[in-house]
Amino acid sequence: MKFPVYYEHIHTCKQTGARYGILHTPHGDFETPIFMPVGTQATVKTLIPEEIKEVSDGLILGNTYHLWLQPGDEIVKEFGGIRGFMKWDGALLTDSGGFQVFSLSKTRKITEEGVHFSHYKSGEKLFMSPEDSIHVQNNLGADIIMSFDECPPFNSSYEYMAESVDRTIRWAKRGLKAHNRKNDQGLFGIIQGGGNKDLRLHCINELKDLDFSGFSIGGLSVGESKEEMYEMLEYLKDVMPKDKPRYLMGVGTPDYLLEASMAGIDMCDCVLPTRLARNGTALTSHGKVVIRNATYERDWGKLDDECDCYTCKNYTRAYLRHLVKCKEIEAAMLLSIHNIHFLTNLMARVRIEIENDNLKNFVQEFYKKYGYTKEEESI
Amino acid sequence: MKFPVYYEHIHTCKQTGARYGILHTPHGDFETPIFMPVGTQATVKTLIPEEIKEVSDGLILGNTYHLWLQPGDEIVKEFGGIRGFMKWDGALLTDSGGFQVFSLSKTRKITEEGVHFSHYKSGEKLFMSPEDSIHVQNNLGADIIMSFDECPPFNSSYEYMAESVDRTIRWAKRGLKAHNRKNDQGLFGIIQGGGNKDLRLHCINELKDLDFSGFSIGGLSVGESKEEMYEMLEYLKDVMPKDKPRYLMGVGTPDYLLEASMAGIDMCDCVLPTRLARNGTALTSHGKVVIRNATYERDWGKLDDECDCYTCKNYTRAYLRHLVKCKEIEAAMLLSIHNIHFLTNLMARVRIEIENDNLKNFVQEFYKKYGYTKEEESI
Repeated sequence: MKFPVYYEHIHTCKQTGARYGILHTPHGDFETPIFMPVGTQATVKTLIPEEIKEVSDGLILGNTYHLWLQPGDEIVKEFGGIRGFMKWDGALLTDSGGFQVFSLSKTRKITEEGVHFSHYKSGEKLFMSPEDSIHVQNNLGADIIMSFDECPPFNSSYEYMAESVDRTIRWAKRGLKAHNRKNDQGLFGIIQGGGNKDLRLHCINELKDLDFSGFSIGGLSVGESKEEMYEMLEYLKDVMPKDKPRYLMGVGTPDYLLEASMAGIDMCDCVLPTRLARNGTALTSHGKVVIRNATYERDWGKLDDECDCYTCKNYTRAYLRHLVKCKEIEAAMLLSIHNIHFLTNLMARVRIEIENDNLKNFVQEFYKKYGYTKEEESI
Repeated sequence: MKFPVYYEHIHTCKQTGARYGILHTPHGDFETPIFMPVGTQATVKTLIPEEIKEVSDGLILGNTYHLWLQPGDEIVKEFGGIRGFMKWDGALLTDSGGFQVFSLSKTRKITEEGVHFSHYKSGEKLFMSPEDSIHVQNNLGADIIMSFDECPPFNSSYEYMAESVDRTIRWAKRGLKAHNRKNDQGLFGIIQGGGNKDLRLHCINELKDLDFSGFSIGGLSVGESKEEMYEMLEYLKDVMPKDKPRYLMGVGTPDYLLEASMAGIDMCDCVLPTRLARNGTALTSHGKVVIRNATYERDWGKLDDECDCYTCKNYTRAYLRHLVKCKEIEAAMLLSIHNIHFLTNLMARVRIEIENDNLKNFVQEFYKKYGYTKEEESI
């Protein structure tokens, strides 16, 4: 079977085992590893599509849960899917809605059929099945879509996790069957299992030979320690299917992106760059900059002396600090441009270092310059 | 004396007496009547400078009061004035700060020397004199700057208004004396007098022969009725100096802009287009559109079928409504682009109609199409 989305492997880093390749989609081919900015509600917050194109690689994410509720997937479909609705001519990925169903609702009840839960704002009673999720994603029309899965806490009991993983496997198979746009949308299976390697492997073994275009790793970056996450990534590196793209969901701090790349991950997404921007924080090659701080009041420097994004080409730290102090929206706009560009650029460098079999060295240099220590928090 | 800012008259509309001319400034020559968008805190809210250039005529306004308090005029000066600080290569006008001193402070005490008042947020005790205002504006570095004036309520008693106008005249003379950048900043005198024609004329007579580059009309659009405002504009039309630019401060609804143009006004400014945008309202040739309304949920049309701005070229009403419903910042961005473009475009049309001696006819057609009736509110 020919998949609309497929992975072409080019090189494996001899120093780390990281993968350099190309992700082929109906709306563009993308070098991997890649960082994908998030456009939850059919807009990457504060950026117009031309700006997204400028600072990203051209593959962004939309959230099924939010668009299903507002304006509704039928309306989005009428307007040409998310791409037509928001006038995005790049490529697109949607999640399944599952993560939001579990994380945003105060109450939920999981049955074999699907999940009963309440609207995250109105409290209205709602229901979503694996088939519903795929149907909604068929309407939203992204190039890459996700299976509907359960995402239990990382350290759930073995009994619960085993039961949940088996349900996620059954749901994945139901979703595959319900998928109506196999010619132009690639459906990914999702690997769950929390911190349990046997269950992760079981999940992989059950899904790997089915007609999925790629595989996502769910249930990481959900509150577990860095060590737990890195250990699981290292384990998954050798057991994930090698011929399909590997997507680590919801990961976006610089160190997570680097560690994920070293563990053979091809795709990552996160709201981090735009969310940090709205809080007045910039990611730079010398670490994060909280631009509100008084020390930047008269600072003629740009955010990052190594950056050539629109914001860094034009504005001083003093001006950006002023905008943040004034709570001006333009602060979020200019910092979002910079932060997304920073992560996009970081991944471009990662790809070069993979080709040079030098990723491990680069990561160590990056950490030193950025100011990371083992004990420190991410960001 | 050669003024850095001066008015070149080209044509008077035979139908209305409206003036078509050119306002010359150190950073560009502008056809008048002109609408100037407001960039209170060294940013036109939600627009980057390239977008401001695209949708305006290239002359914007900054607010002295806000920039004096944050980041401080000395810092702005260090960074090349407002233009250097915000990377604006067009022309610029600053107000005197007087209006905010009077409208934003809970307490204030007016003396001959200046005004004692409290910080609009912190409550800190502050003082501003006419000399202070000019000094701050010299630091902010706009092409066009304003005299520090008192702006009393429209219907103040004759006694109070007479006293206030005389003080405003004395303050204007002191400001003129304090002005340190006569070669590259044009200082405007401000005509006050509320609803009293004798006092307005007195103010004009006292200021008209002094070295002002132009004259502003203050104390209108401050809560008086439309009829009161239009009557005063009609009166001022014949008594304002003809060889200098005439600036009606704080006016920006479509009908006010049209009436002001017919009354011989050359320049107007208002926060209206960006403020309306943040409230989800668009100005269109068929009247205002509250895009949040459910009627636009599946509307494929653009905001205004006669508009060719970026927003109208790219987005459906359905998408804009979705953004407003989601409280996405992009809604304010896209609506601000449209609204400023709408008023800029309206004034371009006004200039053509003046040249054609047809402004009155055009205004009547516009009102009919827009949906204005005499009884209705502006906007």
